[in-house]
Amino acid sequence: MGKLKRLAILGSTGSIGRSTLEIIRRYPDRFRVTAIAAGKNRELFVRQAEEFRPEVISLSDEWDINEIKKGLSYTPKACWGDDGLLEVAACDGADMVVSALVGASGLMPTLAAIRAGRDIALANKEVLVMAGGLVMEEARKNRVNILPVDSEHSAIFQSIAGHRKGDIKRLILTASGGPFLNLPMEKLPAITPKEALNHPRWKMGKKVTIDSATLMNKGLEVIEARWLFDMSPEKIFVHIHPESVVHSMVEYVDGSIVAQLGPTDMKGPISYALSYPDERLDCGIESLNLCKMGKLTFMEPDEKRFPALRLAYQAINAGGFMPAVLNAADEIAVEAFLQREIAFTDITKVVRATMEGFEKGQGHPSLKEILESDRQARKIAKEMVAKKKQPKSIFTGDD
Amino acid sequence: MGKLKRLAILGSTGSIGRSTLEIIRRYPDRFRVTAIAAGKNRELFVRQAEEFRPEVISLSDEWDINEIKKGLSYTPKACWGDDGLLEVAACDGADMVVSALVGASGLMPTLAAIRAGRDIALANKEVLVMAGGLVMEEARKNRVNILPVDSEHSAIFQSIAGHRKGDIKRLILTASGGPFLNLPMEKLPAITPKEALNHPRWKMGKKVTIDSATLMNKGLEVIEARWLFDMSPEKIFVHIHPESVVHSMVEYVDGSIVAQLGPTDMKGPISYALSYPDERLDCGIESLNLCKMGKLTFMEPDEKRFPALRLAYQAINAGGFMPAVLNAADEIAVEAFLQREIAFTDITKVVRATMEGFEKGQGHPSLKEILESDRQARKIAKEMVAKKKQPKSIFTGDD
Repeated sequence: MGKLKRLAILGSTGSIGRSTLEIIRRYPDRFRVTAIAAGKNRELFVRQAEEFRPEVISLSDEWDINEIKKGLSYTPKACWGDDGLLEVAACDGADMVVSALVGASGLMPTLAAIRAGRDIALANKEVLVMAGGLVMEEARKNRVNILPVDSEHSAIFQSIAGHRKGDIKRLILTASGGPFLNLPMEKLPAITPKEALNHPRWKMGKKVTIDSATLMNKGLEVIEARWLFDMSPEKIFVHIHPESVVHSMVEYVDGSIVAQLGPTDMKGPISYALSYPDERLDCGIESLNLCKMGKLTFMEPDEKRFPALRLAYQAINAGGFMPAVLNAADEIAVEAFLQREIAFTDITKVVRATMEGFEKGQGHPSLKEILESDRQARKIAKEMVAKKKQPKSIFTGDD
Repeated sequence: MGKLKRLAILGSTGSIGRSTLEIIRRYPDRFRVTAIAAGKNRELFVRQAEEFRPEVISLSDEWDINEIKKGLSYTPKACWGDDGLLEVAACDGADMVVSALVGASGLMPTLAAIRAGRDIALANKEVLVMAGGLVMEEARKNRVNILPVDSEHSAIFQSIAGHRKGDIKRLILTASGGPFLNLPMEKLPAITPKEALNHPRWKMGKKVTIDSATLMNKGLEVIEARWLFDMSPEKIFVHIHPESVVHSMVEYVDGSIVAQLGPTDMKGPISYALSYPDERLDCGIESLNLCKMGKLTFMEPDEKRFPALRLAYQAINAGGFMPAVLNAADEIAVEAFLQREIAFTDITKVVRATMEGFEKGQGHPSLKEILESDRQARKIAKEMVAKKKQPKSIFTGDD
């Protein structure tokens, strides 16, 4: 049996964090929770602290964490805010950090964990989207493994294991195509947040669900794959696969494709990352019944319907800070859509317009430059959203 | 680049042998042909000898080989018959033997190759069907790798690489279902050899094509997989997958399935076995275009339509020499069907009736006992076929 692994969890009350703790609950002999950090969900956070008794705990707000600390039956080290995240990320004695914050907020803590020599189970894709070159370089320097938690990247990781990297011809990421794959194009602008949040296959957080509907999520994953597997963008392809059963594939130079399939349950990729390289964990996930499903379908993504995908390739090809700009603009645009400030089809328009406001990215930006371009991109994107807050599309013209 | 590998080929003029030489022709720096053996196809055999100039050559017939030797532009060692096969199998200086004879004839030469310490690229599934326990034990003793050339077993091999054997939950072999998957059951008895030889996906030899139509081929592969991967039969499943694109799959305890896909071109699995563990070979096989194919379908095998599959599980569960009996009876029955002596649906009836003539197999039969049961089974099966040679089914009753 694998040796005991001590975990710090960034984002313990989110979807990935909760699934992680569910797995740990099943395997108390293989895992110990050393530290947890979350945002504002006090109630759940208290229950998690009592159950797993981590030595370090952190919430966004100072008042919140102090209130909680008073009521706990033990005395952990209590932290808060950005510094709290860094404390949890680099806390003593952890072997692995589960990086499951949402959006850009995870970058600095994840870097801190890498610099402290912790292996990373990476669910927070923005870390690599924003600063992939820099993060992977730090991981190499600190001999840290970055284990993907995204189902697609876990699939690629599992399909590369035991094969030669030099034999890879291309990676094929699959995308469900989201809820609007077959909606007539002219109906896209009128989509409501509620409709967009109703993903056909996966239960996930709001941001990633909207990104799945626009396919921006797949664009971010292309960028993530580029760094995670050190693969040039022209070797990364996307297939629409509505059943979301084949999580991704790797084609080798001899025409052989190795693919990973599984039920649409995030406990699969999470447990693989947690357990690696020791025995896999049986988390009670039901076997996939391909015969019951009957068929699996595949199609090319429609670039007219999903302009986000092209924007992502443009960003990665432009290089430098451009992926960070793409990401920042998308975060603002998605939030604006969720607030009903802009239309669904405006999301990618805001992103594109924001990207157009930047020079082509420089080769190897520093962390400071990346964070500055992130800040700048948010400002520009917000201005665009704010200028004409109205229920209908603020943009005109074709896509 | 991988180091030079010296190959002996048993069955050089057959379908697998020819594809093997095609691959070698593309990669003259990685392979050298040390020895070749074939049956009666003199014309092709001479061309192969002249092109690859193996040091040892062998044909079935003494007169044939002597005639050929006179006309060759160089002087190889020329052998013939069963001894010739053994010479080729254990010839000096080979690193790997491609075992691609048809049927039971490959068993003794393959064992000879293993005992001589040669790695085996195994296309001749009857070797493991007849004597899997014994052959794998010899391979272990002689530290020999057995590399599968069947597309299904190559798929499993590629889907296990880099993963823990103890994590495997089950193997799923795929089967095209053959040409009669959707034919009304009552039409099965009237199927002609010509119809049965028209396989929808793969171009193969006659025996294996008929076995694909009855699903006996899949049954033999289940037995082969049992030995090759040391997996108990109840962990080996079969899915019908008419597109024959997913070549097989491995499910792990965490619900993750790793699968290998590829075009239906035997050069894929052959080249993987030849190249392993060095770089894969680009044999110009066109990439699989899943988007163009549109969909992949899967279904449970219908045991009423395909009784052969159940017979194979019965044989492996009975153990001992019973799989050899199954195999021998099937060879006789398929040949009788091809000669229009029995009906298509009689093939499995002959096999079952032959198996019923034997006591439950003993645990670990010796090679002598296996060969004796093979001989005995052929005799019984032939008697059954001969008793009532007639164009229509000799058997009555339901299956």
